[in-house]
Amino acid sequence: MTEEKEERITTRAVSQHLDGLIGVKHPVLDHGHIIVLDYMGNDDSIVQAARTSYKKGTKTVSDNQGLLNYLMKNRHTTPFEMCELKIHVKLPIFVARQWIRHRTANVNEMSARYSVLSKEFYIPKIAHCAAQSTTNKQGRGALLEHRQAEEVRQQLIAASERGYELYTLLLGEDDEGNEVKDGYGLARELSRMALPLNFYTEWVWKVDLHNLLHFLGLRADPHAQYEIRAYANILMDEIVSKWVPQAYQAFIQHRYGAMTLSQTEAQVVCEIIHRAVGAGTVFDWDAVKTEYKLSDRFVTDLKKKLSLYGDGHV
Amino acid sequence: MTEEKEERITTRAVSQHLDGLIGVKHPVLDHGHIIVLDYMGNDDSIVQAARTSYKKGTKTVSDNQGLLNYLMKNRHTTPFEMCELKIHVKLPIFVARQWIRHRTANVNEMSARYSVLSKEFYIPKIAHCAAQSTTNKQGRGALLEHRQAEEVRQQLIAASERGYELYTLLLGEDDEGNEVKDGYGLARELSRMALPLNFYTEWVWKVDLHNLLHFLGLRADPHAQYEIRAYANILMDEIVSKWVPQAYQAFIQHRYGAMTLSQTEAQVVCEIIHRAVGAGTVFDWDAVKTEYKLSDRFVTDLKKKLSLYGDGHV
Amino acid sequence: MTEEKEERITTRAVSQHLDGLIGVKHPVLDHGHIIVLDYMGNDDSIVQAARTSYKKGTKTVSDNQGLLNYLMKNRHTTPFEMCELKIHVKLPIFVARQWIRHRTANVNEMSARYSVLSKEFYIPKIAHCAAQSTTNKQGRGALLEHRQAEEVRQQLIAASERGYELYTLLLGEDDEGNEVKDGYGLARELSRMALPLNFYTEWVWKVDLHNLLHFLGLRADPHAQYEIRAYANILMDEIVSKWVPQAYQAFIQHRYGAMTLSQTEAQVVCEIIHRAVGAGTVFDWDAVKTEYKLSDRFVTDLKKKLSLYGDGHV
Amino acid sequence: MTEEKEERITTRAVSQHLDGLIGVKHPVLDHGHIIVLDYMGNDDSIVQAARTSYKKGTKTVSDNQGLLNYLMKNRHTTPFEMCELKIHVKLPIFVARQWIRHRTANVNEMSARYSVLSKEFYIPKIAHCAAQSTTNKQGRGALLEHRQAEEVRQQLIAASERGYELYTLLLGEDDEGNEVKDGYGLARELSRMALPLNFYTEWVWKVDLHNLLHFLGLRADPHAQYEIRAYANILMDEIVSKWVPQAYQAFIQHRYGAMTLSQTEAQVVCEIIHRAVGAGTVFDWDAVKTEYKLSDRFVTDLKKKLSLYGDGHV
Repeated sequence: MTEEKEERITTRAVSQHLDGLIGVKHPVLDHGHIIVLDYMGNDDSIVQAARTSYKKGTKTVSDNQGLLNYLMKNRHTTPFEMCELKIHVKLPIFVARQWIRHRTANVNEMSARYSVLSKEFYIPKIAHCAAQSTTNKQGRGALLEHRQAEEVRQQLIAASERGYELYTLLLGEDDEGNEVKDGYGLARELSRMALPLNFYTEWVWKVDLHNLLHFLGLRADPHAQYEIRAYANILMDEIVSKWVPQAYQAFIQHRYGAMTLSQTEAQVVCEIIHRAVGAGTVFDWDAVKTEYKLSDRFVTDLKKKLSLYGDGHV
Repeated sequence: MTEEKEERITTRAVSQHLDGLIGVKHPVLDHGHIIVLDYMGNDDSIVQAARTSYKKGTKTVSDNQGLLNYLMKNRHTTPFEMCELKIHVKLPIFVARQWIRHRTANVNEMSARYSVLSKEFYIPKIAHCAAQSTTNKQGRGALLEHRQAEEVRQQLIAASERGYELYTLLLGEDDEGNEVKDGYGLARELSRMALPLNFYTEWVWKVDLHNLLHFLGLRADPHAQYEIRAYANILMDEIVSKWVPQAYQAFIQHRYGAMTLSQTEAQVVCEIIHRAVGAGTVFDWDAVKTEYKLSDRFVTDLKKKLSLYGDGHV
Repeated sequence: MTEEKEERITTRAVSQHLDGLIGVKHPVLDHGHIIVLDYMGNDDSIVQAARTSYKKGTKTVSDNQGLLNYLMKNRHTTPFEMCELKIHVKLPIFVARQWIRHRTANVNEMSARYSVLSKEFYIPKIAHCAAQSTTNKQGRGALLEHRQAEEVRQQLIAASERGYELYTLLLGEDDEGNEVKDGYGLARELSRMALPLNFYTEWVWKVDLHNLLHFLGLRADPHAQYEIRAYANILMDEIVSKWVPQAYQAFIQHRYGAMTLSQTEAQVVCEIIHRAVGAGTVFDWDAVKTEYKLSDRFVTDLKKKLSLYGDGHV
Repeated sequence: MTEEKEERITTRAVSQHLDGLIGVKHPVLDHGHIIVLDYMGNDDSIVQAARTSYKKGTKTVSDNQGLLNYLMKNRHTTPFEMCELKIHVKLPIFVARQWIRHRTANVNEMSARYSVLSKEFYIPKIAHCAAQSTTNKQGRGALLEHRQAEEVRQQLIAASERGYELYTLLLGEDDEGNEVKDGYGLARELSRMALPLNFYTEWVWKVDLHNLLHFLGLRADPHAQYEIRAYANILMDEIVSKWVPQAYQAFIQHRYGAMTLSQTEAQVVCEIIHRAVGAGTVFDWDAVKTEYKLSDRFVTDLKKKLSLYGDGHV
């Protein structure tokens, strides 16, 4: 997918940092990768779309950050839909099966009805061979012992090798079109079913920024399976942060790093704070304000927010 | 739309309360309404879909509530997509323009290319005639004085009457097909442009429960315009609460009544609480636990949550 | 998924034929199935939604068929979105990967992060073991010889058995929770990657009728892979045809059985017909009309359609 | 929206023709317009995405056209989703209400809750003031007489002027923030309801090429209302044809200019052709082939297509 780079002239919005990354391969897992193929828009595009709605707004960079924070915080999500990212991804099939559940995106996957898959499969590192969690039905717990992990890897390697051998035997050819002795010539769409779920597939994935951030919120989360998280982290840290640095800041502040309290949790937290503040001697807003370099506005808003759930005397 | 009720036999999942409301008109605003036409699924359908994913889970009603809370809290949203609601709505065009922005729904709107609209328009009550907010660019502020509000209403009524008169003059007929003297016979698709945005339209709207709750989260919010909120409140309080009472509880607890703190807000709140708890004499978890009837699990989870943002000593 | 059937009272729209099929298992392939779990709406619901738009229309059954034909022919698709179907499907993973590409649907798939998959895998019958097509890059050609097909099946069976054996060894347990000797206790989300793509998965799939018909148009097509076609055919012939028989007729007439001619093809066809009709002695509209029992309206419309691309003298 | 043009360097795919049109205003109707703000991808991007699926394919331009035709004809629509267009549109509200029904797009509309609308409204030209069609319930028929049309226009102008006057009186300000004498200061979100549906609104609309072509297939169709067709025609003829000229050709050939025959129509057409060909003396494939410069492949494919519905002897 990485054609030779050629510089062209455009009058479109450009994100210099991301433009420089087009065609660059970000390795993920043992044989996977993410390559940025194209993008549309930058931080200014989001701001411009929002201003179409509001027709008001200031022009300096610091104001743009403020507007992006406001949009993110108040879930005015449509301006973030105005940016698009298109990437080439190479990923194990079992990861692809999780990823594809994000429906608001465009995908062209390599088809094993047309093409012969290559002999590339994912084998977890020893550091990722973990036991089933005893507390979390869907997660990993303690790491396997080193020797056991190594056995697991060897078993998976052997099974994958055998799977690919059967695949090419059924096909009667390998992925370079070489004939396989005593092969069956079975149709590609059938032969593929011999391959295990750790084989790699490839696709072009295109998504708007709002839906990409939603994807990251779920897949860069510690509860996501490590293997898809590895992709989400690259997308978040290496790509989104460079493409739209201000939207990225807003995302970290108001979404990724945010804390949601349930109704009851919020009541309890507000109660605790009310008591603390009520005690007077213990807690001092001014000290916190100085220490955290908080603006007056921030403190006013937070007090108001906390008082909504308490008895109004924060 | 409200055909005569007829009882039929089905082997499908039924929500008795909502079934009883089929065809019942819930008035909204001065001439609008919501009528439930059909629905699919109930609380059990959500639970059943979730169990297809997890294949584990207990059977009693209290457990269902727990599972629904878990799903809502952890944003496992797909099981909520397994229920559908279909309603007939009569609403002013300017409200319809906000409503239609929710794209993940199905709509059949009465077409003014085919049909002649009736002489029905929305006039706000005096209690809703508010001035532009001085602090919130998109909201309402103080109420107008009674006399002024009454003038506003009279002006709107007169303009709406004139608008409809012109509409039927252009058409050359009224909504019952009676000829209008000296009318022009202009095509319906053109004549309609004489009508102001406060005229009523009608549509059938069908949506899954997940997207309906998302709609309610935004449109039953105090920041939403009063006129669309009036519809959202009926949907939430009169329809969803009766259709899927357990999912409704989970929604109130973990979404509608929840509080989201930004990253910095969360840090400050955790700092405050840490100091309060650190002071020892001031705050007492046990007292709060008793007062709010909190479970051990709840307290453990909340402490853990708060310690993630503080220094770990809550 | 097939809970014991219980009859309930409802005032909702009912499709008697489909209601009778709720919970009934339609076997597909060697271990797969489709079970109708729930549905919303019937032929009348489509008609009713369309009438909300048009506010005109007649009431007899034959008129309903006419309206449904009109909607289907003119791609007025929104009324078909007013019906929903919810099914439980058991299908091989490689079929699930094709199926899931239809994004406008709701899915809850059994998760192999939570649950242990059963030892069930798809092995094609001898009659479906075909060679790669020599003319169609994505299709099947001639059947393999009987002996070769049997070998293919034995190879696939052996590989699947080995795959499952490794899976349970990695897990340290089987799908009934029995401990596996010398197992590794590897997390489920990792162990699953040892399974080949022919293993069965399960999901609840919910879709509206418009998108279901679109799915059928693509997946009940002869170009679709046999294995997904097997599911599409059951859906079309056993389920949709009974649920909404009139919409089904319209679909067959105007979509599934329709022929699309490209611009140039249409020009050539019209030219041929023009010449044939011009020759007079050869072709006789009246004879065709009688033979095919065509209405005057049909003949007029077709002539008009054909003349648009020819020189206007059909 | 049309900021000053600035040339920038990019390594992204460029469509030179469309790049030159960024920021250029295409007038539509009396006060409306379309301005291209940004785009992503070009003809090659579609081809490249398709090749990710097929991994085969040739490289010359003529082959690209062939591949695009193949994709369009066989409804392999996902590669067309890989291109995006972002435009600024100014359009009457009643047109916006039709346009917004296309759900798979991103929109930021100017909000009349925040901003004061300008005094701009649509008045149809005399040449577009048509009577209600007597045969087509949703269309226009004969033009009004000149004098009547002029009266219609004057009535609409007067009503629009009055509507705007009331709007600003309710607001207590005009769109430039000037105070209006004796104004009420009513909230913007309420005041707007006095405006008729022919007032202009603005939005940024972003859509992928597949969904844009779908939009054009419906809205550039003669059955679409003239006013939205005016926008669709500009998009098709001035924008898409320059952005992706090869995809545009494929669209015209296989979608926009294509003819769909229902099952019965196809049977009748095939019967006619069979009889014509059977007569021998009348029809001559070779002559048609020469006249229309058809390839052997085209004739073979068409014969095969026609024979599927006839008795196989075309």
